[in-house]
Amino acid sequence: MALISFARGMPGPDLLPIAAFGDCAREALERDGATALQYGPPGGYPPLKQWVSEQHGVDAARVIVTNGSLQGFAFAARHFVQSGSRFFVEAPCYDRSLSILRKLGAEVEQVELAEDGLDVDALSGSLRAGDVVYTIPTFQNPSGRTLSLENRRRLLDLAAETGAVVFEDDPYGMLRFEGDPIPRLFELSEGSTIFLSSFSKTVAPGIRTGYLILPDELVSAIEELVLSNYVSPAIFVEAALLEFLTSGRFEPNLETVRDGQATVSPRLDRSGFGRENQPEQRGRTDASESERGGKEKIHCWSSC
Amino acid sequence: MALISFARGMPGPDLLPIAAFGDCAREALERDGATALQYGPPGGYPPLKQWVSEQHGVDAARVIVTNGSLQGFAFAARHFVQSGSRFFVEAPCYDRSLSILRKLGAEVEQVELAEDGLDVDALSGSLRAGDVVYTIPTFQNPSGRTLSLENRRRLLDLAAETGAVVFEDDPYGMLRFEGDPIPRLFELSEGSTIFLSSFSKTVAPGIRTGYLILPDELVSAIEELVLSNYVSPAIFVEAALLEFLTSGRFEPNLETVRDGQATVSPRLDRSGFGRENQPEQRGRTDASESERGGKEKIHCWSSC
Repeated sequence: MALISFARGMPGPDLLPIAAFGDCAREALERDGATALQYGPPGGYPPLKQWVSEQHGVDAARVIVTNGSLQGFAFAARHFVQSGSRFFVEAPCYDRSLSILRKLGAEVEQVELAEDGLDVDALSGSLRAGDVVYTIPTFQNPSGRTLSLENRRRLLDLAAETGAVVFEDDPYGMLRFEGDPIPRLFELSEGSTIFLSSFSKTVAPGIRTGYLILPDELVSAIEELVLSNYVSPAIFVEAALLEFLTSGRFEPNLETVRDGQATVSPRLDRSGFGRENQPEQRGRTDASESERGGKEKIHCWSSC
Repeated sequence: MALISFARGMPGPDLLPIAAFGDCAREALERDGATALQYGPPGGYPPLKQWVSEQHGVDAARVIVTNGSLQGFAFAARHFVQSGSRFFVEAPCYDRSLSILRKLGAEVEQVELAEDGLDVDALSGSLRAGDVVYTIPTFQNPSGRTLSLENRRRLLDLAAETGAVVFEDDPYGMLRFEGDPIPRLFELSEGSTIFLSSFSKTVAPGIRTGYLILPDELVSAIEELVLSNYVSPAIFVEAALLEFLTSGRFEPNLETVRDGQATVSPRLDRSGFGRENQPEQRGRTDASESERGGKEKIHCWSSC
């Protein structure tokens, strides 16, 4: 029988575009030549920033491409902790983000999950200006829950009333294989929240490419933090990714990943876990039947 | 006439292995499959760590591969600043390293350069246990000077007597095109110093791959700092680099880079700068005739 580990969100190896990405790396170097092997700006390869900005309908200057989305989280977290912000996070919260906040010495308030994710009622009355609400509203990690449209709007209203900042982490939103998509907080707020995403689940973790979309006034502060760590992210891998994204390979790959998850999902019970494995983890993932996708198969891998 | 900028150490575009690196990316994915597109450990792709460790004759567990060597510098600097260490650096010092130390709030003492680089006499009498001496002993940035064998030994003796830590940054040592190599401080100390290097100048900057070699007792502390920033470096690019290093492409590429520098060097005067350009920069680079290599051509690029 297959051994399934839920320790980390690793995509199944059969869902990784191995041959296609190798082709993209070659094609990118043919296309961009020395530029793809040189240093670049701290916010990432400009044509990739442009692609991301077009997906989200924002100015490319607001995009910072990072070495995986966790690096983007770490920069934003450091900025807000240095500014004295309190963090409100889900309980349970994505463990790596929480660990970074703890190491930064952040003041962290954990909010128990409601049935659809972050409990907006519980937040109400606690938030004040400058607080940061960090949330994964779609297929939350680790619970898999997805915040309803109504509660998304309530969260944004609450943040607007109090002057709190909403920091949306969305690594899984594009991997939905059941139910209708719910607009991101970023879209509902007309781009005024902080948005974090990743190509780890939609393309591959080993390319370590994620991105932040920031309000204009935060860009230079975060770029300063980038330059306190590295000169630029790996332009070569970003050029290869851009080729993957613009050569017609991305959308079919997304379908492959979604299909791969949908195929494995009948083997998972309603809590999202295999019925016979890892009973001690039960209850940590509990996506409803109508809200499935994102982090089911990619949080499984098999040794069989 | 060519416009030559000395603002940054960018390799000439004609010295970058564009086609070869694209081939390596494909070959690495054929060789390693899904492993090259997955997450990896915080210290980098194990087979690359193994290759680096064999080059330096150390245990692979002491190697941490980072997103460019500046990221490695930043981790080590953060660790020592948190431990309360004072830093002794060259004057002038590599500007990005100095900037990181300043932002970390480090106590920094700058030591004027002697004719062969770091002034060991000036250090004498100042060092105490726990201090860190950060130096680029070979083709120092920005001066191009190279510390003599005698002064390397004196520096190591001084550090041993006082209990100071020597932190050697060596991005250029393999690019010598004139004169005999001088052993690294790392070699002279039998691997007891901290060593930092990079594949930016020997392969390409856009792959953003550098590495630290640490004393055993520092490895876990630095890996903790890695995990406060990202899950792992980009395994894909490290797998491609490993293919470049092990497929017989690295050594010929080094020859190409050295030859490229040697070709441009007659156009530079003894101070390492073009005779007619950027007079305000004169004196910042002053490698002697017998100690040339490393950072001459790679600190030039041409608009012609």
